[in-house]
Amino acid sequence: MIYQGKHYRTIWFQGTSVFMIDQNALPFSFRVHEARTCKETCAAITGMTTRGAGAIGAAAGFAMAQAFLEAGTENREAFVLEAKKQIESTRPTARNLFYATDAVFQSGIVSTDAAVAEAQRLAEENVADAMKIGEYGNTLIKDGTRILTHCNAGWLGFVDWGSALAPVYVAHHSGKNIHVFVDETRPRSQGARLTTWELKNEGVPHTLVPDNAGAYLMSKGMIDMVIVGADRIASNGDTANKIGTYQKAILAKEFRVPFYIAAPFSTFDPAILSGEQIIIEERSEDEVHFVEGPDDTGAFHRVRITNPGSKAFNPAFDITPGNLIAGFITEKGILSAESLKLYPANY
Amino acid sequence: MIYQGKHYRTIWFQGTSVFMIDQNALPFSFRVHEARTCKETCAAITGMTTRGAGAIGAAAGFAMAQAFLEAGTENREAFVLEAKKQIESTRPTARNLFYATDAVFQSGIVSTDAAVAEAQRLAEENVADAMKIGEYGNTLIKDGTRILTHCNAGWLGFVDWGSALAPVYVAHHSGKNIHVFVDETRPRSQGARLTTWELKNEGVPHTLVPDNAGAYLMSKGMIDMVIVGADRIASNGDTANKIGTYQKAILAKEFRVPFYIAAPFSTFDPAILSGEQIIIEERSEDEVHFVEGPDDTGAFHRVRITNPGSKAFNPAFDITPGNLIAGFITEKGILSAESLKLYPANY
Repeated sequence: MIYQGKHYRTIWFQGTSVFMIDQNALPFSFRVHEARTCKETCAAITGMTTRGAGAIGAAAGFAMAQAFLEAGTENREAFVLEAKKQIESTRPTARNLFYATDAVFQSGIVSTDAAVAEAQRLAEENVADAMKIGEYGNTLIKDGTRILTHCNAGWLGFVDWGSALAPVYVAHHSGKNIHVFVDETRPRSQGARLTTWELKNEGVPHTLVPDNAGAYLMSKGMIDMVIVGADRIASNGDTANKIGTYQKAILAKEFRVPFYIAAPFSTFDPAILSGEQIIIEERSEDEVHFVEGPDDTGAFHRVRITNPGSKAFNPAFDITPGNLIAGFITEKGILSAESLKLYPANY
Repeated sequence: MIYQGKHYRTIWFQGTSVFMIDQNALPFSFRVHEARTCKETCAAITGMTTRGAGAIGAAAGFAMAQAFLEAGTENREAFVLEAKKQIESTRPTARNLFYATDAVFQSGIVSTDAAVAEAQRLAEENVADAMKIGEYGNTLIKDGTRILTHCNAGWLGFVDWGSALAPVYVAHHSGKNIHVFVDETRPRSQGARLTTWELKNEGVPHTLVPDNAGAYLMSKGMIDMVIVGADRIASNGDTANKIGTYQKAILAKEFRVPFYIAAPFSTFDPAILSGEQIIIEERSEDEVHFVEGPDDTGAFHRVRITNPGSKAFNPAFDITPGNLIAGFITEKGILSAESLKLYPANY
């Protein structure tokens, strides 16, 4: 992705450091964060300096490579296994994270160089998968299509291109006239802060809407399709994604708007039979109570926007049942929930 | 309602001024705003210093009384009709507003004293209706019931007691152990700022949730019923209420959770056959882009929370179809959408 004339990836590995675009600073400033150790990379994942299924996967792979680089020759495997546990506790719902830690751990048994190479390969694979997702997804988009998306599953949520937004970018670059409605996505506002920033950068026509506007928009016939990303997909198609996704999938059924999940196979979890087995991360209630942003002089403030003394509940994800999903846009094509079981070898 | 040991109404009329609790200052500070003229009262309605179906109705009645007080003897009716037009343009979706301006205008034709008396009577009626709504609604609430509400239809949305929260208060005062889940209600955050403040004041157990959490909560069986207020109800039961209400009604149907509207008959609009005829107010996109609140030193800041350069769309209400509503909790009992047509004389 190009930002101010320069090509960037969301996250990359160089020397012994992980570099990532600081997603907590966006859209107000563009900064690159350097995580010099496995521990710092873990903190960046937990604190959402980097976020999104694909970017978390890449970060976890790089963190695993850092663990191998940091391990001495004595107790090497125990050291790395402990690091693996730490990495896997950062964002428990994210399938790509576990996919990456497992793969890099296996390679690292051979050598540290192999671990680093595998982490780099996973990041490259993430980019290649996203491009294919974009091409397959583009076949669903017509000239004039109005798309609703939730959270950020774009460039920033991946190493490049994205999952849900990859088809949008391919359609836009191919000259189709499209419009994207972007859910604000409280409480972290990834839609309002990140997806709109990406779309603005790319020149894609878009409108930010409160999460509450979904039924209004669909009842007025303003939405032709919904495309969102995924954090973990069970083998029956049940899909964990950002809180509020399930709500939009139910609306899409009510209004007969096709609802698509865009995700690479690294997000699919063959070990899980249904969504009930997916662990939902609960995050701090402070994410609901406080927001941060610039005032009109550009000075930043963290302010409270809720009643002091009232508790909040902040589940980070929900599970959309497979039967509400029109299709999964993957790097291998567009699959139905039923057809997922035909792909065990690809997991 | 008692606040810090003193009885308050949300809005009242004294001399020639309308006094109202400043709802833009809550929950961080408790202030009473004085609107000395009809024009100032209109500005307070538009700017949401006072808000909520019942409070808007009372404010509009008082503003109409102010118009009569301000009118000279020459061109009295023309002056007052112009003021009526101004008042009715403040919040076009609010049925109670038009109910009040019509009633006070009719009384004012007789005398200015009659206009003031009618405005006061409407406010008293609003309190009495809310108390009856509370008693009828309480019959639906059991010990242990967990209620989801959206926006604020409590004490602050009425002259006293509220519509959706009146049953909650009656149930709580009668000793029932209840729990209220409160939707944040972006973009104005009436749930996070006002409903939670009221419930905290009253000691009612409650939890603030992002608007996105509805399907999660209902799918986990955490919600027994939904009660919300209304801004205008068509004669077929289609109901305009805060944006996001329709979304929650569709979820309630999906999860078989009963969905109730609490509103006095002054919110019912017999002239409107269906929701399609209800005008939806669109508010400034800045309500989506900016929030205001205190930092940890208590200093207030207005900060941007969205991508600069991206446009937002901000419809203030949506229309929930009557067939999604289990019942209307009114001052005359709990009615179904079908039974509304039996009550033409009561409108």
